[in-house]
Amino acid sequence: MINQVTSPDNTRDRIILAGIRLFAAKGYQSTSIVDLLQEANAHSGSFYHFFPTKQDLLLAVLKAYRDGIEPMLLAPAWDGIDDPIAKVFALLAAYRRALDSSSCTYGCPIGSLALELHEPDPPVRELLSVNFFGWVHHIRRCLDAAQNGNRLPRAVDTEQLAVFVLTTMEGGVMQARTHRSLAAFDASVASLRDYFSRLESAAREESQSC
Amino acid sequence: MINQVTSPDNTRDRIILAGIRLFAAKGYQSTSIVDLLQEANAHSGSFYHFFPTKQDLLLAVLKAYRDGIEPMLLAPAWDGIDDPIAKVFALLAAYRRALDSSSCTYGCPIGSLALELHEPDPPVRELLSVNFFGWVHHIRRCLDAAQNGNRLPRAVDTEQLAVFVLTTMEGGVMQARTHRSLAAFDASVASLRDYFSRLESAAREESQSC
Repeated sequence: MINQVTSPDNTRDRIILAGIRLFAAKGYQSTSIVDLLQEANAHSGSFYHFFPTKQDLLLAVLKAYRDGIEPMLLAPAWDGIDDPIAKVFALLAAYRRALDSSSCTYGCPIGSLALELHEPDPPVRELLSVNFFGWVHHIRRCLDAAQNGNRLPRAVDTEQLAVFVLTTMEGGVMQARTHRSLAAFDASVASLRDYFSRLESAAREESQSC
Repeated sequence: MINQVTSPDNTRDRIILAGIRLFAAKGYQSTSIVDLLQEANAHSGSFYHFFPTKQDLLLAVLKAYRDGIEPMLLAPAWDGIDDPIAKVFALLAAYRRALDSSSCTYGCPIGSLALELHEPDPPVRELLSVNFFGWVHHIRRCLDAAQNGNRLPRAVDTEQLAVFVLTTMEGGVMQARTHRSLAAFDASVASLRDYFSRLESAAREESQSC
């Protein structure tokens, strides 16, 4: 992700990567400049040259997530999958793997920052918002493809449903992480899967009645 | 809430109320002891007498939420509502009002703490977990009543669906707060409402075929 979204300057890249890792692992406010320097193996002079404040690093981290959604998140999750509805659930399965491999300590980094920062400065909040919109946009493209293929009823608002898929992921990850158990994530995805099955069934009836 | 869940000692109550207010408004880590003393109009000697550490106050706050769910959250949201499915959506409507009246800066205090605290000490994590379980328990009771009245299909796992309702609230609040707009919350609840409508319709068909 870093190679693709930042300048080729190595120190700057290492600091952004340190921000990605530490903000996700410890939270933004719990991560000190000293933590970041150690993780990036960088000196404070370099840090402040690239990032006058910790918030400047946060903005760079959020831009890296924004620009990395396709290469880092979607491409691996959707490798070999063409069916648009299967893609929706393959993305949710990628989050399940992240929970499973971290003993359910994983949190969506955007969702965690969105709730950790109670009064984010406008540029931070806007980049959090842009990250959510990006995620929803890609899911909506899947849902539009499914609807165009008569797999979803014509009356379904695909933007609304795409938001609901993100809601399912975020709410499921939040509970799984809190309970240190996959059960609530699995329950949420199973409910969404049942909802999709009912929508697909309604679309089939719609097609047959034409 | 406080009168019902804490000792009658006024200073202790005031400190817990200050914790409820400030942890919700600023976050746990951003709230200092000085902030709490000012908000509670208390001296540090009283504070440390009741709460040797800030985490001890956090535990008391989480117990207040746990014990306050019926009198403080459910009773006002469900006042005058008997229909078990209407209760589910009336509770979601209460969260919408909290978002609306705060210009979408409201966050579920439990959800926010669950994501802010990346490595909570076990007693904190357990009380966050207990709060989620309590919320789900009350929704499940509504769903069981609906199922017993043939309003939901017999095959519906009411525990799973209750978790999904919490997922909808938490994911919707997170996005609304991030976008500073009710749209994502409304989209999430509208999707859940459509899912319930399809479940209710399936239950009617089930009843008619008996």
